[in-house]
Order: sequence, then structure tokens, then C-alpha cells
Amino acid sequence: MTEETPRKVDMEKIVSLCRRRGFIFPSSEIYGGLSSCWDYGPLGVELKRNVKEAWWRVVVQERDDMVGLDASILMHPQTWEASGHIEGFADPLVECKSCHLRWRTDEIKDNNCPSCGGELTEPRMFNLMFKTFMGPIEEEADVVYLRPETAQGIFVNFQNVVNTTRKKLPFGIAQIGKAFRNEITTGNFIFRSREFEQMEIEFFVKPGTDKEWFDYWLEERLNWYVKLGIRKENLRLRQHGKDELAHYAKECHDIDYLFPMGWSELEGIANRGDFDLVQHANSSGKSLEYFDEKTKEHFVPYIIEPSAGVDRSILAFLCDAYDEELAEGETRVILHLHHSLAPIKVAVLPLSRRDPLVALAKQIHADLRQCWMVQYDDAQSIGRRYRRQDEIGTPFCITVDFQSLEDNQVTIRERDSMNQIRVPVSELKDTLAAKLSGEELFVLPPGGKIWKGGEQGMISPQREK
Amino acid sequence: MTEETPRKVDMEKIVSLCRRRGFIFPSSEIYGGLSSCWDYGPLGVELKRNVKEAWWRVVVQERDDMVGLDASILMHPQTWEASGHIEGFADPLVECKSCHLRWRTDEIKDNNCPSCGGELTEPRMFNLMFKTFMGPIEEEADVVYLRPETAQGIFVNFQNVVNTTRKKLPFGIAQIGKAFRNEITTGNFIFRSREFEQMEIEFFVKPGTDKEWFDYWLEERLNWYVKLGIRKENLRLRQHGKDELAHYAKECHDIDYLFPMGWSELEGIANRGDFDLVQHANSSGKSLEYFDEKTKEHFVPYIIEPSAGVDRSILAFLCDAYDEELAEGETRVILHLHHSLAPIKVAVLPLSRRDPLVALAKQIHADLRQCWMVQYDDAQSIGRRYRRQDEIGTPFCITVDFQSLEDNQVTIRERDSMNQIRVPVSELKDTLAAKLSGEELFVLPPGGKIWKGGEQGMISPQREK
Repeated sequence: MTEETPRKVDMEKIVSLCRRRGFIFPSSEIYGGLSSCWDYGPLGVELKRNVKEAWWRVVVQERDDMVGLDASILMHPQTWEASGHIEGFADPLVECKSCHLRWRTDEIKDNNCPSCGGELTEPRMFNLMFKTFMGPIEEEADVVYLRPETAQGIFVNFQNVVNTTRKKLPFGIAQIGKAFRNEITTGNFIFRSREFEQMEIEFFVKPGTDKEWFDYWLEERLNWYVKLGIRKENLRLRQHGKDELAHYAKECHDIDYLFPMGWSELEGIANRGDFDLVQHANSSGKSLEYFDEKTKEHFVPYIIEPSAGVDRSILAFLCDAYDEELAEGETRVILHLHHSLAPIKVAVLPLSRRDPLVALAKQIHADLRQCWMVQYDDAQSIGRRYRRQDEIGTPFCITVDFQSLEDNQVTIRERDSMNQIRVPVSELKDTLAAKLSGEELFVLPPGGKIWKGGEQGMISPQREK
Repeated sequence: MTEETPRKVDMEKIVSLCRRRGFIFPSSEIYGGLSSCWDYGPLGVELKRNVKEAWWRVVVQERDDMVGLDASILMHPQTWEASGHIEGFADPLVECKSCHLRWRTDEIKDNNCPSCGGELTEPRMFNLMFKTFMGPIEEEADVVYLRPETAQGIFVNFQNVVNTTRKKLPFGIAQIGKAFRNEITTGNFIFRSREFEQMEIEFFVKPGTDKEWFDYWLEERLNWYVKLGIRKENLRLRQHGKDELAHYAKECHDIDYLFPMGWSELEGIANRGDFDLVQHANSSGKSLEYFDEKTKEHFVPYIIEPSAGVDRSILAFLCDAYDEELAEGETRVILHLHHSLAPIKVAVLPLSRRDPLVALAKQIHADLRQCWMVQYDDAQSIGRRYRRQDEIGTPFCITVDFQSLEDNQVTIRERDSMNQIRVPVSELKDTLAAKLSGEELFVLPPGGKIWKGGEQGMISPQREK
């Protein structure tokens, strides 16, 4: 967090946009909010769905060597003994003897409370796992934990997956799900919260091939963000020093993103060696070895783990997409979200609220809604409506005007260039499908024409009033 | 649970199939499992994704009057005071003084322990919410609960959604997410578990129109199951008697399904009146009234709530799809899953593992995988491979044979009828797209021909060897 971002975006603008437009609200806001928990509103839930879908598609659907999993949040407590979380997943904490505020020891500069200057207690270890009780009576025997990471649900199912899918090494198991950490210090909006969602891959390889696969996944995962529109200059790889490596890791790199508060971790890629499977095999007494039919060898696979945060990714996509333009004295806020991530793909905007026109607009809306998330907006001037869609990242607006009633054509207006073209209603769906899939960016479709005072044949940026 | 199902399915078969083929495993199985928690394996996670997607598509994407939401699992504890859960969401419980097993009072037939016959304590109320502690020290002040239903996350966001979307009544908010209940008596596989997933709609209407909307949603939700392939005779509506109505409900109907253990609730549709918004308005001091711009009235909307269980729906879809056929002395197990729900849409099966054929098959596989979840299987006889795909509900198998190398055509074999047709590879994707979308069931595509010893033009069921 040393460098400053030179961009127009700052955290306050993102938080405000998210709150105002229904991307993200503080949890239980009418009760004053719940510290560091967030609710995804109507637009946020679609953005989140799209981010998860983009990950699942590339990581599971399009690959031969990956299957999915959805393990439960509550797991057998022995899992966390074997994983080392009960003993090791803890921060040292001190308490002020006067004001009773608690602090992580790395937040303390001298021996006094940073808030009131009071005397501090000796540090004691505080486990970051949320604990709860299963069964009717609260007893130590019934303690279960909310998982602090989704990874362990994959490790304990390794043999189940091998047996039922007959997958051969190298192969991976991918999972998206909630995890919980009772963090002392949270903040930076959805960057660090107590309830969050992970997208984790555990990729099982033969020992000796792990370095090669580690490098493969570094590149693969970096490029996932780039392909979804994150600028290369806002991404970097940072190798963990020996002193900061987790106990299970042979090697670890963070994919950092240049957030408004500085470079911070977006995803961690770790070579976990055989640590996890050996621990669980020892603890459960079950063999977690893999049998290589070709070489007739038994061995414990090594694991490469690309572990991404859904919420952090969303924050990065929002920050990277955010832009402001000065247009005729007004500020145009635009989210240049990748088409596949945009919560609303198309907005249908009738130029009037009168009937033959409204009927046509509604019919187009109903038709497009079969394919995509589509909004219908007939409130205020067309310029205001374009601005509203720009601000939430809608790639295309369809304007239905009086001319449409005569020639059965409508205008498609593109978010980034503000270019407009005119297409027959009968070709609208195919044209949008091609544009949204990225097969073409903004080319005149057959039969379409440019909407510019009746002129034809020109494709050029055109400002709206 | 009074009537017996006459079908071939029983719970044991479903549990066994789910375990064997990687739909559903017991949670943390290597540690002996965690009571009543389940992990969705590689096929189960795809089925679950498809069920949720089918719901979201119909309920959110295709409707004008609905938006989505994704609220956090941890909510401000005052939420549960206002909702009545802290006081009322409890079961009376007795404990055996000898063996210390605990029982719900409705499970006790006399005054003795059903297990050992020992003496029982007086009943005491046991709250079904899981509690945990937010912040470093366990104190009553820091108690938070794992939500026992997703509904409250919607109620507390009602005003946020109205303000940010400018939706007009009637409209609904839809949400899919995990909920947790510390049930004493669980069981029937994934039917009743402590961690489960809900798909809930809270539909806000003007008081006086609630009866009409209640009836609308009854029909709408019943038909959702029917359209996704559940047989009408296995569904029924059951109206709650006055004595079993929840404290918040004016009226409630269950959509019951004829599970192997008998008729049980699949979804509940309740008219909650203004109970929830009034409670939260009183508790938070925030107005949760709606202002009707047309009539200039302020009022608290009534709420119609169709509340479905993801896991229960999955169990119903599996049970209803399950079938056994005796074919040439062997039992063929088939999951007649709706195309949109099937975890794997297409399997690519090369008739040989030799190379020009494998190259073609792999190319087809890579191509189709861009569109759908596709499996590649080259192990054992073609008959065995068909059986494996039938058992997991794969609608279409593509067989690549030596003839394919010459005529560049492949065989599409349909799961239910076992009909086979021959189509050019160039038309494969379009043909499958049409079949999977249900636009056609099994019609000869242009250029395709029936695979039956070289005969052409016949479409008839054809058994495999």
C-alpha cells in the first residue's frame, strides 16, 4: 500500500455508486449495519453471478482436467485439527485495561493503547474461526466451526472424487462458496470482510511436476483477469518471502491489484506440496494416496492452489471499469465492465410513453429478456436514461422511436463509444448476441444503418444531447 | 407420510446412486461424516447449479416485476428479535436422565426415554438458531446467529431496493442462499439437514390484492415443477389448518411431493400480511411504508412468500427422474432428468482408442464444451458407456465410429427413447442446441440420417447391443 493510484476512481466513489445504484448495501442497514458484512443488491447479485459464472466456465466447463464440488460450510471439527487451523489460525491480541478495546500486536507502536493511551494486557492468541454448537446443548464436544476457507472441503473429498470420476492426474477440483473469518481488522469496503466468498482450485499433480504446474496456473489465472478487462498495468505478481510463507506452502505468489488503497492481494497461488493430504491421511487413518496405473506407483499428489476471492474480484472489476468523462459540462460516469460481467446487458428505452410505441418497446423487451438480463426504462429524458445505464455498465441501449413504428428499425447505442446504429427489429437479437459474445465489436450489421439525421453508411462516434 | 409410493424408486437406491456416481457425499466422510450435512460432488454441483439457474431464470430474468438479492448469512441480531425467532423459533425438548439422549416432546409417547426407557427431564425450550460470536471475546453482546431463513435479508432491504430500483408495487425480491437450523431430528438424506439452501421470493403487494396474488403464486410455483418434468400425480397442494399456521401467516399452502418416504413439503407459499415489515419498522424505527404515486397513499405492503428448498427440489427431481428398465436380462437405470437440469448435456464416445478416430472425437469434445458440460468417455464397451450416461441423466451421447472418418458424420443417441440418428459433424452443434432447448424432441435434422445398418429415413426406437 505504498503507491498512489493515478486514476479517477477512489474508494468513496465506488462505495457511493454501489450504495446509490443497488450494487452493495451494508448488511442489516436499518439496524445500523453489521460490522464488515455486506448485502449484494439487485445489480450486485447479477454482477456476482456473472463473475462466478465466468470463473466456472473457464475453470470447469471448458477444461478436461477439472471437476466441480460444493462442500458444506459446517465440517467435522477434526478437519480443522488436521489442517492446523485450530492450533495455528490465530492472531496475537492485546486488550486495553482502561477502555477494553482490543488490538492486534502489529497495530501497537508502543506499550500503550492507540485509542486512550491506557495500559495493555499481555498478548494472547485469538483464533480467527467462528465457532458454533451443533446439537441442543452447548458443550465443547459439540463445537463446530464455520469454515475459514473452502479448500479443506476439497481435500477431504479427494478420494471420493477420484473414485467416482476416475480422473487421472493431473486434474483439479474447483469450488465456489462462502467462508468466514473473525478478523479483528476489517475494512476497505468488501475487500476484507468477515463473511466472504472464495473461488478455489486445488490442482493435484505428480510430485516433480509441481513447479511446472505452478507456473502454468500463475499465467492462467493472471490472464483470466486480463481477458475480463482488467488493465495489465494494474496487476502484478508478488512472490512471498521465506519469512511470510504459510506453514503448508513450498512457494506462493500473490496476484496483486492496484486498488484505490494501493496494491493488495486479489488471488494467492500456492504450491502446497503434499502437506494437506498427508495431514488428513494421518488424522483420519484413510489412505489418500493416488495409484498411477501406468507406472504402477502409489504416491501422495502435490497440490497447486489458485485461491481467489469473489468479493475482491468484484471490487477490482468495479474499480478498473470506473471512469468519468466530461461531456458538455456534465460528468458522465461509466462502468466499462466486460460484456460478460455487466449486470444488465441491454436496456430498452422508448422515446415516448404513448401507446403504439410502448407496445413495440415492451414486445422487444419481452423478447430480449428470454436471452439476457434486460431493463426497461421510460423515465425522464433519453440522455438521462443513457447516463443511468452507463453508470451501471450496460453495454447496449435500444432506443425505440416514432420512426421505428414506420420502418420497424431501432437504434442500438453502445456504451463505451456512444456509437449508434440502426437495425431491423427482426435482426436485433442476432446482432446483440454477436456483439455481446465479443465476436464483433461494433460493425454495421446487414440491413442496419447509422442513425444520424437520416444519413447512411457512416460509423463514427456520436454524442447524445 | 401415510401413503406408499408405487414407483421403482426408493431412498436407498437414490442415496446409493448419488454416492456411487458423485452426486452427493456425506460431509467430511473420511472423518465419519458430520451429522446431517452433505457435500455435492462433481455431478451434484452441476445439478444444483442447474436447479438454481432454472429458478433464477424464470423468477428473475424473465420477469418485469422481480429483482434479485444476495444478503449475508450473518445479520444484525436485532433482526431475529424483530422477526420473532429469538423468542419463538424453538422446540420443546426433554433429556433422558440415564442415557442423556434428547428428544422433541412430540417424539415421546409416554414419560420414558424411547431409547433406554429411562426417566425424562421436564421439557425446556431449545432455540433452533445456530449462534456464534463476532469479535474476539465470547460475550453475550457479541452473539450473532446463522440465519435460519433467507427471508429476513429481503425484508430489511425492502426500502433499499425500492429506493435504488424505483420498482412499483406489485413487485418481488428473489434470493438464493444458505440457511442453518440446529434441528434435533434430521434425516431422509438431503430432505432435512442442518445446513441447507433456500430459493425464496418475497412478493410485495397492495393490501386487498393479496388473495389474488397468493393464488397466482400457487399456480406459478406448482407449474415450475411440472415444466421441469415432475409428474403431476406426484405433486399436491396442502392447505395449513388454523392450528398449524405460523404466527406470521394469514394463509399458507404447502406444495407437497410424493417422496419415497411419503408426501412431504417441497415448498411453502404463505401470505405473511404486513407482519414482517411492521415488525422491522417498529424495531428499527425506520419507515418501511410504500408510497403509491398514483393514489397518493402511504401503506405497508402485504407479502406473498413462495419459499422453496434447493436440496429438497434436487431430491424430488432425482426421485421423479429415476427409472429402471429390464433390457435383455440387464437392468438399465435411467435418470429422465429435464434437459435443463441434467448435469452433463452430452457425452462424446469414440468407438476406438486409436488415433485418427480419437483426434476427431477430441475435436468434437473440445468444440461442444464451449457450449455445454460435456464428458468424454472411452472406457469399456459402448453399451456400458451408454448405461453410465443413462444413469446420470445425460440426454445425448455422440458416438464417433470408423464410418465417421469417411463421411464426417456421427451418431446422436437419445437417452429416453434410445433412438439414434446420424448427423454431419458440421451440423452437430445446431442440432444439439435445438434438441436441448426443447424446440424439437427428436426429429430428423436436414442432412442427417438414421443409423440402422445403412437404412435411411426411418425414425424409430432402436435398441443397442
